[in-house]
Amino acid sequence: MIIDGHSHVTLPIEEHIQLMDQVGIDKTILFSTTFHPELANNAQEVKEKMKYLNDLLAGKKGSMLEARKASIMELVNAIKQYPNRYIGFGAVPVGLSLNETKEYIEENIVRNNLAGVGEFSLGAGQAHLLEVIFEAAREYHKLPIWIHAFNPFTLKDIQETVSIANQFPEIPVILGHLGGTNWIETMDMVAETPNLYLDTSAFYSTFVLSTIINEIPEKCIFGVDMPYGDLELSKQAILKYAKTSDISKAVLGDNIAKILNI
Amino acid sequence: MIIDGHSHVTLPIEEHIQLMDQVGIDKTILFSTTFHPELANNAQEVKEKMKYLNDLLAGKKGSMLEARKASIMELVNAIKQYPNRYIGFGAVPVGLSLNETKEYIEENIVRNNLAGVGEFSLGAGQAHLLEVIFEAAREYHKLPIWIHAFNPFTLKDIQETVSIANQFPEIPVILGHLGGTNWIETMDMVAETPNLYLDTSAFYSTFVLSTIINEIPEKCIFGVDMPYGDLELSKQAILKYAKTSDISKAVLGDNIAKILNI
Repeated sequence: MIIDGHSHVTLPIEEHIQLMDQVGIDKTILFSTTFHPELANNAQEVKEKMKYLNDLLAGKKGSMLEARKASIMELVNAIKQYPNRYIGFGAVPVGLSLNETKEYIEENIVRNNLAGVGEFSLGAGQAHLLEVIFEAAREYHKLPIWIHAFNPFTLKDIQETVSIANQFPEIPVILGHLGGTNWIETMDMVAETPNLYLDTSAFYSTFVLSTIINEIPEKCIFGVDMPYGDLELSKQAILKYAKTSDISKAVLGDNIAKILNI
Repeated sequence: MIIDGHSHVTLPIEEHIQLMDQVGIDKTILFSTTFHPELANNAQEVKEKMKYLNDLLAGKKGSMLEARKASIMELVNAIKQYPNRYIGFGAVPVGLSLNETKEYIEENIVRNNLAGVGEFSLGAGQAHLLEVIFEAAREYHKLPIWIHAFNPFTLKDIQETVSIANQFPEIPVILGHLGGTNWIETMDMVAETPNLYLDTSAFYSTFVLSTIINEIPEKCIFGVDMPYGDLELSKQAILKYAKTSDISKAVLGDNIAKILNI
């Protein structure tokens, strides 16, 4: 089974499903999103949408909590339309108390039958905020946690995240984007830590992608990060650089299927 | 004419030329390199090579000056073998005096008929070291300058580089890798500054690539960054996301051909 392990709700949903059919993707692990760059027509509109998101994240505009809840509704509706093609991960705010976090997860993740929590996109120096998320996730069927590990997340943040993950060995943790420019150190930590995995989306070098997927194939999860990445070219890259068909099979679907019991 | 505007000497040379033939690349702007990750067989060998390079860059091991000169010899030999397929850019050390820099450029760049200088891969906070390079380049037929503008180069470094470039409007400046994660701000500065260009290699998002090449097509230069990038997939990405054939033609070759009078 070929599974895109990381993409955001990309509108219109029908076109995303058609594209999955064309490229030969059986399922997508779908993440909520608070904005839709795929609806922008040009750079000016992209910039306006990015600015809005940044203001939202910085607390300058609107309520991030409300925006997150609305995005989960959108995610849940997409999954309801295509229950055999989509499996959902839902965003959870950081900075809440343990009890508030548990309530949020109960209400938004568990009741909606979502399979995991994330994407956590934190700023530099914010990794410690994940500790409460891990504690809450443990209580709900050991929900997997998906963490953006590219810029602005630093190597120190990744190390701190790994250290927290070590305290929760029963929770699968997926570090996004191969650890970004800190890929060597991240690869080594993931190799050593049983509950850590790497998502391949947003790779900026096929040399890096190739090195990692052939070194720790059982730890790599194919991801596209739509609408930011290209489904077809991303799949081609894995098929081209995996040294064996066992490796491409593991990365392109088997690994995430095992984690999520698909 | 289709030109890969940025790749490093990739061994063996004969295979690189064969690949260019297969993918339909007429010429490559070839950059020197002090190490060859393409010769590594696995992650362990990659890590050893990366460590060696980092130690060299940090001045912990060997002489970076000698390593650079050896890499220029290798570059020049590659061009001698395939003079119709390769055009060279040579590395120049930073931190030398103006006179030393001019001597270095005279001896290594000008005498070897190289077409430009770079790649300058500087650390955070080092952009000011480029000023001497610009001054020296001005004296030698306004040699184009190619600067790595992804991590660890910061937005502040890119802004400082742009400010220097503004003082040398006759020198073409190519900012590598679309400005990395600072692509929005970098795109805007490149749009406003006549002598600034963007290299597309190491893009980590086709959404970002698409936004930029369609916004400022006359300022974008197709690059692959071999051996780190994939020639075929990189070309496919430009062809897939350019909204018109005029845009793909400009990005895939015409822009760099104009700058270098090819």
